[in-house]
Amino acid sequence: MSENLPKSHGRKKIRPSFKPRELMDPTAELVHAWQAQVITLFPDAFPGILGYSLTGRALQDGIWQLQSVNLRDFGDGKHRNVDDTPAGGGAGMVLRPDVMGQAIDHALSRAPAAPLVYLSPRGRRFDQAMAREWASRPGITMICGRFEGLDQRVIDHYNILEVSLGDFVMTGGEIAAQAMIDATVRLLPGVLGNAESAEEESHSNGLLEHPQYTRPAEWRGHSIPDVLLSGHHGKIEDWRRSQSEELTKARRPDMWEKFHDL
Amino acid sequence: MSENLPKSHGRKKIRPSFKPRELMDPTAELVHAWQAQVITLFPDAFPGILGYSLTGRALQDGIWQLQSVNLRDFGDGKHRNVDDTPAGGGAGMVLRPDVMGQAIDHALSRAPAAPLVYLSPRGRRFDQAMAREWASRPGITMICGRFEGLDQRVIDHYNILEVSLGDFVMTGGEIAAQAMIDATVRLLPGVLGNAESAEEESHSNGLLEHPQYTRPAEWRGHSIPDVLLSGHHGKIEDWRRSQSEELTKARRPDMWEKFHDL
Repeated sequence: MSENLPKSHGRKKIRPSFKPRELMDPTAELVHAWQAQVITLFPDAFPGILGYSLTGRALQDGIWQLQSVNLRDFGDGKHRNVDDTPAGGGAGMVLRPDVMGQAIDHALSRAPAAPLVYLSPRGRRFDQAMAREWASRPGITMICGRFEGLDQRVIDHYNILEVSLGDFVMTGGEIAAQAMIDATVRLLPGVLGNAESAEEESHSNGLLEHPQYTRPAEWRGHSIPDVLLSGHHGKIEDWRRSQSEELTKARRPDMWEKFHDL
Repeated sequence: MSENLPKSHGRKKIRPSFKPRELMDPTAELVHAWQAQVITLFPDAFPGILGYSLTGRALQDGIWQLQSVNLRDFGDGKHRNVDDTPAGGGAGMVLRPDVMGQAIDHALSRAPAAPLVYLSPRGRRFDQAMAREWASRPGITMICGRFEGLDQRVIDHYNILEVSLGDFVMTGGEIAAQAMIDATVRLLPGVLGNAESAEEESHSNGLLEHPQYTRPAEWRGHSIPDVLLSGHHGKIEDWRRSQSEELTKARRPDMWEKFHDL
């Protein structure tokens, strides 16, 4: 490794010019590619950001596929109702078990082996280990909630894994689905251009990532730390390691404790 | 509260028919509305899902505004370069401090009082309290990373708050920005149709939300728990409370402990 790496080293070509919607082909064969299905009331919101950059290129390259299942298609009656008032009273609306059950059956018929996940703030928190585990499976089927959530009988009947993006509440599960799909897809073979990238970063080795610097060497009176310009790779390695450890200790004592128990 | 609430109670009208991109008017006045700015290499990915449903209607109603700042506009030279190789070597690319500095200055000139946040897996974890705090401010300015991240000098120079969506790594900060904006915007006055909704849900009272049920009363052999159909509101309240507590104890001992310390 030399400090004077060629400019093209690790650089990704960004090709956001294709139309993201065209990448979602419902008639496409689902063999070989990692397959994400999303049950949602907002199918047009997909692929969204997932159609850009690394995930978009991987979608275009057939490394993974994305199919949205429109919950409204399974709705009841002329107005295709999908929700109703909570049993026992209270605010908001609950997604109906009969409607959701049909949507799930449809998704399962296409991908019976994919884990079935419901995005919910009550769930187990999503983390890097879960992303790695999902990347090793044939794909994933995600259910996006809206309103006050899903009828509990559906969760129990299908033994659905509830997964939470974090300790906060969103208007629906769609953004959570995109976040988890992004974190998982980038771990699929061939998605990241440089294999090292996924190994050195935060949460992969149990430590937060060290600070990064790049040109110019001097910016508004601030310089790059001398050691990084020394060309002494052993010292650079040591400096980065100790920065990672200090940062983790200071910001995330919980991670530091786990790191030491390993 | 009666179990036989009218069907329209708390129901949201979904109007996804307008074109989300039209809601982002760069010439619009920024007074009175909560103002989100996002510095990104993918401005076309906004508003994305935020243009739909509750957040989309609130955007249309002028409760909040969204402006994306295209980092590429501040890029260097003919190719508008925004990144360079890491000082000291290593994989990936780092966003340049001079380029990002100019983009930040531009954003600050439009909204000097908004907190400046960098979406980064090294940051403090986003949670409901942070969403509440941000909702009380005039807005937020978010910096989306890509590649190996941001030059540390920029973070230090502007004293930028690093915030993490969770313990996982994504291809960029854009989805994290959308998640945090969604969680924050839904707390702005007038966004949720029914004020109760934000008070009863998971993470608002320190407990996970109790199970929800709705019609039909019988579905694939599963019934709604009797108590919820009893019409006895005190008992329903007690049942929900104890379900919330049991669920929190079982799934999130860390939350349960905090809840008891309050």
